[in-house]
Formats: sequence, structure tokens, C-alpha cells
Amino acid sequence: MAKTVREAFRVPVEQMDPRGRPIGPQDKAAGKQELAALGERLDQLQEALYAEAIGGGQRAVLLVLQGMDTSGKGGVIRRVGGLVNPQGLHIATFKAPTEQELAHHFLWRVRKQVPAPGRIGIFDRSHYEDVLVARVDGLVPEDVWRGRYAEITEFESELAARGVTIVKCMLHISPQEQAERLLARLDNPAKRWKYHPGDVDARAKWAAYQEAYAEALRRTDTDAAPWYVIPSDRKWYRNWAVAAVLAETLAELDPKFPEPDFDVDAERARLAAVTPATAAR
Amino acid sequence: MAKTVREAFRVPVEQMDPRGRPIGPQDKAAGKQELAALGERLDQLQEALYAEAIGGGQRAVLLVLQGMDTSGKGGVIRRVGGLVNPQGLHIATFKAPTEQELAHHFLWRVRKQVPAPGRIGIFDRSHYEDVLVARVDGLVPEDVWRGRYAEITEFESELAARGVTIVKCMLHISPQEQAERLLARLDNPAKRWKYHPGDVDARAKWAAYQEAYAEALRRTDTDAAPWYVIPSDRKWYRNWAVAAVLAETLAELDPKFPEPDFDVDAERARLAAVTPATAAR
Repeated sequence: MAKTVREAFRVPVEQMDPRGRPIGPQDKAAGKQELAALGERLDQLQEALYAEAIGGGQRAVLLVLQGMDTSGKGGVIRRVGGLVNPQGLHIATFKAPTEQELAHHFLWRVRKQVPAPGRIGIFDRSHYEDVLVARVDGLVPEDVWRGRYAEITEFESELAARGVTIVKCMLHISPQEQAERLLARLDNPAKRWKYHPGDVDARAKWAAYQEAYAEALRRTDTDAAPWYVIPSDRKWYRNWAVAAVLAETLAELDPKFPEPDFDVDAERARLAAVTPATAAR
Repeated sequence: MAKTVREAFRVPVEQMDPRGRPIGPQDKAAGKQELAALGERLDQLQEALYAEAIGGGQRAVLLVLQGMDTSGKGGVIRRVGGLVNPQGLHIATFKAPTEQELAHHFLWRVRKQVPAPGRIGIFDRSHYEDVLVARVDGLVPEDVWRGRYAEITEFESELAARGVTIVKCMLHISPQEQAERLLARLDNPAKRWKYHPGDVDARAKWAAYQEAYAEALRRTDTDAAPWYVIPSDRKWYRNWAVAAVLAETLAELDPKFPEPDFDVDAERARLAAVTPATAAR
């Protein structure tokens, strides 16, 4: 009992039910209410993180989102990212790498998107694709993708050392739920643009992907950059859970508004002395 | 009568009362209600713009925010930008140029921040600083900043020609309101980080700034890139007004969801045929 939100979700993916609700709100109404409350908290915490960086602070947060197609990466960005000031966000989407990107080390394009101090970065897919699709589709030899586990944990602990707190969420859905969501995208002309024939190809390799996810999470779950498995068959629960993990992480960071680097009383006096010529207009 | 929102705000800055409400909601309650309704509309329009670009569309929107300190540029980003999916936003803040930026043409750093197709870009200050503070503080000779009016209109019509719809909003506040807001920042420890002693220096040059704004707006107000003067002494009215101008602009663009580049029925059949091995798990 008295588990933290993060403890509740930091479990092997094989042990998490995509429809599970191991902690927090148990129905949609409660979920929406608790999400709104978390929104206010997140908004305040993010403002403090942003302000801290204005004052010279170096800390940032990076939320990595991974999951099968339709698992809700975009939905989390919209519903959870949408809770805070967009000016404090840095969102990066990683699609299949371009030729230029392929010519570089797989972390090259990722390094360029690390959030600046004060920001909450959100990765819509990430360097984990390089041990997921790269493995399942055999894009590189096994020794190469296996070697990447260590490269990733090294990269992530380097980020942590310079003040970037990493929160990795795997949005875990069931194949049944995915089928319904893909079909819904096909049925709705306003959602068809989100559908790609390749989604069905990836779906056909479900078991291979689950195996790739399970090993990737096991090998790269570190205290510096933990993995949280978010039950995502229910969108409201998924949104609440990611927001709760993020809020708990930010609360622990406890970002501080900077002390002024000016004399507050002197500024009050200067302000009182300045009456613009047009003030009476 | 029957003015559009954009017509109501496309007036010389000297003719707009910072407390005016020339159109739309007249009290705070109505303003908040109408803003929420606009939010839904903006969210839909932005999703369509984003989708259109996924389908190959080239159109984007650029919202340029200018105004004296405390006029609410950050507030608009938070309250209006916060109404849409953050994934569809590209926010750029232009502070005093760095040495590297000063070594380039003044539009160099601006060109790098032009929103990609499908995005709504928001500029927190912009290339207009180069005819505002540059003029008031004499950072460059008069013939240089005067020459920039033409450079700016040329740049903006070039953007318009390649599909970027430009919406420029000057957030117009009174010097009295500014004094109250600066004092409030000094009084609240959680807001002091937003205060800079330089704000009072700029305030002391109020009349010179108003003159610089008036001429800049007059010389760069074009049909390709119009200026809207937003009465900003009331935050709720300012937020509504910018959202309304943006929504009217997007509605006129009428972005379209792309036609699928695949056979929808064939995909339905493929989807039905794929039953992942783990589906029963």
C-alpha cells in the first residue's frame, strides 16, 4: 500500500494488463476530474521549472513516449501536453529516419532534440525505435541493435547527469483495442489521415514487437531513466496515468522560482518615478 | 455593421483605445464563454491544417505578437496557443539578438523559425523589433531601419506566396495598465522572474515607442500580412480577440483533410485478416 504512482507503473510489460487500473481513478468521471486537478499542478510546476531556467537553472524534463500504432502517443501530447503552457514544451516526432539521419549515428537526430533547460521535452517515438522496428524488421544485424541497449543507457545517464530528468512511458494496448482503433480511423474520413497501410504490417508482427518491447524495457530501465508501463486501452486512464507520473516527477524535482538579481525596492521606486508623457492620454 | 472581427481590429494604433471592445463579448463572463467556444473551433481547424500538410499541403499560419512589456504576448501564447494541440504549434521567442545573430542579416534568425507546413507558428516578438527598439535606442542609423520596412514587406509577401498566412497582432496597452502589471510582478515573488529592470527603461521611452509602432504598423500593413491592433488592457478581451482573429483567418483558409492514398475497403479487409498470435492473451 501507499505506493507512489511511479512505483505502480514501473513493472515489466508482460505483467501489466492493458485494461488495468493499478492505482488512481477507477472510472472515467473520476479520471477526468483528477486529470483537471493534475493539470493545475502541472501548470504551476512547469512554470517554476521554466522560471528556474531563466534564473540560470539547468534542469529539464524529457518525456519519452513509445507504443504500438494507435496506442495514444499523439493523444497524450494533446491531452497531457495541452495542460501546460505550450511555450514550455519542446515536442519532437521521430519518423522513419531520412537518408541523412541514417548516415549518422542513431542518436545524432535525438541529441538535437534534447530539451533546453526549463523545458519539458516530449518525444513522440524516440531512439527506442532503433531497438524495436530495427530489430523486428531486421534493419540492422542483431549485434548492432543489441549493442544499442548499452549506448542508450549511457546516453540517458549522460543526460541525467546534466540535469535532464527522463521519464519513459510505454503506452500498452491490447491487439483487440488496436484493431478497433484502426478500424475507427478507416471509418471516419476526418481520421483517415492518421491511418497508414504499414500499421497493419506492423500489427501482423505483434508478438515480435511485444518481445522487442519487453527486452528493450528490461535492458534500459535504470534509476536515471526508468520505464513506466501505462495501461492504455482506456484513453482517460492513460492520460491520467501519464500526467500523474509527470506531476510526481516534477514535484520531486521541486523547481524553484529564482531570486531576483535586482533590488526590488529600488525598482519599485524607479517605476514610480517614470510617468510616460502619454500617461494622461 | 456586420463587420468581421478582422475588420474591427485592422485600424491605426492611434485610433484604438487599449480598453476598447469594438466587437465581440463586452464582459468577462461572456469573453470566457466565447473563448471556450472558439477553442473548439480552433482545435478542429488546426487539426485539419495539420492533416492537410500530412497529405502534402504546403499551407501554414504565422501569428506575430508584438507589444510593450507586460502587454500579454506570453499570456496569449498560454491562453490562445493552449487551446490547440501543442504538436501543431511552433513557438519562437526573439530576445535581444546574440553576437552571432547580429553578424547576419536581421531576417536570418527569423527565416529559421518560419512554421513548417501544417503548423501554426507563434512569434513572441519578431523582426519588428528591428524597426522598434532598433529605432528607439538608435541601434542602427535611420536609413538602415527605414530601409527595413521594405525588406519586411518583401519578406512577408514571399512567405505569403509560399503558403504562409501571416497574422500580425499588436497588443495595445495603456501606460497606466503597464505600471500596474510591472508593480504586480515586483510584488509577487512567483512573478518576479518576469520582471527586468530594462522594462522601466523602455517604459520611460513610451512616446518614442508609440511613434515607432505607429509608423511600423502603417508601413508594413499589407493585405498579404495585415496588422491587427488588439485592445489589451483587459486580458480576457485580448485573449478572445486574438483567438477570434486567428479562427476567422483559419476558417477562411478552410483547410481540408487529405484524401486517402490507399484503398479504404482493401485496408478494412487486410485489417480483418490480421489476427496477431497474441490476440487472445
